[in-house]
Amino acid sequence: MTRSAQLDTHRRLRHLISLENLPAAEMLRLLDRAESLRQEWFANRRKLDLLHGRTVVNLFFEPSTRTRTSFDLAAKRLGADVINFDIASSSTSKGESLVDTLHTLEAMHCDAFVVRHKENGTAEFLARHVRSAAAVINAGDGNNAHPTQGLLDAYTIRRHRPDFSALTVLICGDILHSRVARSDIHALRTLGVGTLRVCAPANLLPAQTELPGCEIVEDFDTALGGADVVIMLRLQKERMQHAQVPSEQAYYARYGLDARRLRLARPDCLVMHPGPINREVEIASAVADGAQSCILEQVGNGVFVRMAVLAELLGT
Amino acid sequence: MTRSAQLDTHRRLRHLISLENLPAAEMLRLLDRAESLRQEWFANRRKLDLLHGRTVVNLFFEPSTRTRTSFDLAAKRLGADVINFDIASSSTSKGESLVDTLHTLEAMHCDAFVVRHKENGTAEFLARHVRSAAAVINAGDGNNAHPTQGLLDAYTIRRHRPDFSALTVLICGDILHSRVARSDIHALRTLGVGTLRVCAPANLLPAQTELPGCEIVEDFDTALGGADVVIMLRLQKERMQHAQVPSEQAYYARYGLDARRLRLARPDCLVMHPGPINREVEIASAVADGAQSCILEQVGNGVFVRMAVLAELLGT
Amino acid sequence: MTRSAQLDTHRRLRHLISLENLPAAEMLRLLDRAESLRQEWFANRRKLDLLHGRTVVNLFFEPSTRTRTSFDLAAKRLGADVINFDIASSSTSKGESLVDTLHTLEAMHCDAFVVRHKENGTAEFLARHVRSAAAVINAGDGNNAHPTQGLLDAYTIRRHRPDFSALTVLICGDILHSRVARSDIHALRTLGVGTLRVCAPANLLPAQTELPGCEIVEDFDTALGGADVVIMLRLQKERMQHAQVPSEQAYYARYGLDARRLRLARPDCLVMHPGPINREVEIASAVADGAQSCILEQVGNGVFVRMAVLAELLGT
Repeated sequence: MTRSAQLDTHRRLRHLISLENLPAAEMLRLLDRAESLRQEWFANRRKLDLLHGRTVVNLFFEPSTRTRTSFDLAAKRLGADVINFDIASSSTSKGESLVDTLHTLEAMHCDAFVVRHKENGTAEFLARHVRSAAAVINAGDGNNAHPTQGLLDAYTIRRHRPDFSALTVLICGDILHSRVARSDIHALRTLGVGTLRVCAPANLLPAQTELPGCEIVEDFDTALGGADVVIMLRLQKERMQHAQVPSEQAYYARYGLDARRLRLARPDCLVMHPGPINREVEIASAVADGAQSCILEQVGNGVFVRMAVLAELLGT
Repeated sequence: MTRSAQLDTHRRLRHLISLENLPAAEMLRLLDRAESLRQEWFANRRKLDLLHGRTVVNLFFEPSTRTRTSFDLAAKRLGADVINFDIASSSTSKGESLVDTLHTLEAMHCDAFVVRHKENGTAEFLARHVRSAAAVINAGDGNNAHPTQGLLDAYTIRRHRPDFSALTVLICGDILHSRVARSDIHALRTLGVGTLRVCAPANLLPAQTELPGCEIVEDFDTALGGADVVIMLRLQKERMQHAQVPSEQAYYARYGLDARRLRLARPDCLVMHPGPINREVEIASAVADGAQSCILEQVGNGVFVRMAVLAELLGT
Repeated sequence: MTRSAQLDTHRRLRHLISLENLPAAEMLRLLDRAESLRQEWFANRRKLDLLHGRTVVNLFFEPSTRTRTSFDLAAKRLGADVINFDIASSSTSKGESLVDTLHTLEAMHCDAFVVRHKENGTAEFLARHVRSAAAVINAGDGNNAHPTQGLLDAYTIRRHRPDFSALTVLICGDILHSRVARSDIHALRTLGVGTLRVCAPANLLPAQTELPGCEIVEDFDTALGGADVVIMLRLQKERMQHAQVPSEQAYYARYGLDARRLRLARPDCLVMHPGPINREVEIASAVADGAQSCILEQVGNGVFVRMAVLAELLGT
């Protein structure tokens, strides 16, 4: 999405479709807001009243646990009502178009649409068709973007390593099918991470033009050298064609993060993963559950980051 | 439903099953309440506290987007809690009868049941079996009635054309399978619309006895003459037997509302449709999205009308 | 579950997995809390604020109407938010393990997990894996336990017959497959019911060691003699192997509670059933809907008992 389409005429964030071209100042404002909401939550454990009277619609065309629940909780903890739009049993089964569904829900004075869809560009498409003041938030479109994941990953890293310019961050795994990788790269580049490195089997690596500013290292052991953060990606078996990966065991042997490999990184290297994890496929249980793992912390931070996005987009 | 069954012993509305035999005074009270709730909403955009502590149960045995969501929002914006009763995954799959389900939910102190079912008479059947003070609201039963749609259509017309006696309202399309048409006719007759006219292919027209007080005109071009309002109906493909309509193209040629035809009506004729629309089947996109279209306004008004129904029936 | 696992180090209830080994003092505290919440509800019909800011997750791996809705209403009437975790459309379909799902939801600061699963021991398994202060509540695991049902049955009896030591309680039906029977037996024994009697066809009766302190009577007419309370069980057709019961008619002839049989019990004998009932299979409609039936009262009490469990476990 072009910068102007995502921002309004006052250059304030209007929708959240992609982190590509999102100015660093906007990202930092969201991360700072997440931090203040987090502190407020831990101080009181009370719901806020910021979005009282507002309605957030979850439009999930792909199954999801964590992301949908995370947005659901984020909205409720800000005092909003949530409509979980069950696509399978909805009138889209009567052939209504997505845009007509959007306009119908806008006519009911819904304020935000959280959209997940297997097709790239769905959230942007909806954002272009919004007629009211409602905001569209991309909760994942195909392999294109998952901006709240990119933000929560940046937020999680910042809580541990505030000086991004000194960091080496390695993203490893199925980059080709990963909207998480794309959003992480956009976030971390914009926020000034010193070295961004990606590692994947050649057939799970997109063209270099899709990896702006990234070092590409095919051998995982080599790639881990000097890493302050390693973000492991889920093997997106459901999006792969047959035989892109010979076997899970062979994949794990070459690209699985186990305890031996983790020792090749810096001693305090953070281990991250967007979840859900495939244990002993891309990551060893001992590492996923180990002292350096931030995986569950990412999940918790996701709620605060989504609260921040909702609060900022709905203008409160 | 007989008048006495829908009203209580003080002649106040107790359930909302059908607009047939509903006194004009009751209808007007609901429309006026919708208007005042609308104004309150736009002034504050805050949820009201009228139904705090009350529980509204959505019992939808047919898929629905707009109606279920509309009731869901209406209840929440009045401060009620909503139980969306997922029929497919419920104990009705264990063979529990509908009446036992009703009594179970009443025993849990649920206050209103919003019922959609493909069988005519389901809501009335449930209303007859209610044992508590709970209200039953028909959200559509077979081709019989959809009273909140009838009310919201009347409400929408009244906002634009307050003097009903001077109006010619045309309802066009699949009258035979349409609960919307039946409820619109009951509402508009009771509220004193000057001329009520229906237009449909002969095989989609019910017996004249089902169209009390209506002119019947088979040719659509002729029917449009002098119309102040035209209500287009959805071609209920899912309720039709094979070959009731030869083809969508043929149907559109004879009964589709396009720009040329709309010019046969009065210049400021309102275009309405209960949605979801079949574009280029019963209505041209240019008309559905045009300046005379009230289709999305109907959607928005539906929430206020349902708020009014819930508030009145739950006695607050 | 061992006593120490269910209680915390201060011997307060931490999870509710089973009534086996739950001290009488804990049970009585829950029943007393249910009574006070009931009175507060009927005085005000307002939601309470006790669990404001808390999140209750319904993790139902088996379809359920009444239990899920009952917990949903209980949580909402205490001011909590509820996440209904739809298992079929969740990431468990991506192969995520149950424990990883639990930890993910804990990381989002969810406070209670209400779990139903067809496998015995699922709730206990989750309770052993909880890492936060969250509580696990067993809403039914296989044929093992359904502790809130046991409590609400005890509560319902106590409201009518406060002196348990004088009572004869008969549980009749498919004891073998019934988690309700097991929890009822644990509750009523612990609370000091004078005579606990079970009645079932030989092939639907578990080993005597699973029926601690119970008289076993195979003939239903004989078993009813002197009963103050008869708890009829649902014929769990969905959990039975073929031909465990020859036919519903034959079952009803021997183990159905009809008006004639009810007269064999004490004149004011209470009739109970956990629902949903199979009419004319284990109970005659005339009895289920008759003056001695407490079946719907059980449903209503269930909400108050679950409010009590949530309030006590979440420490408010």
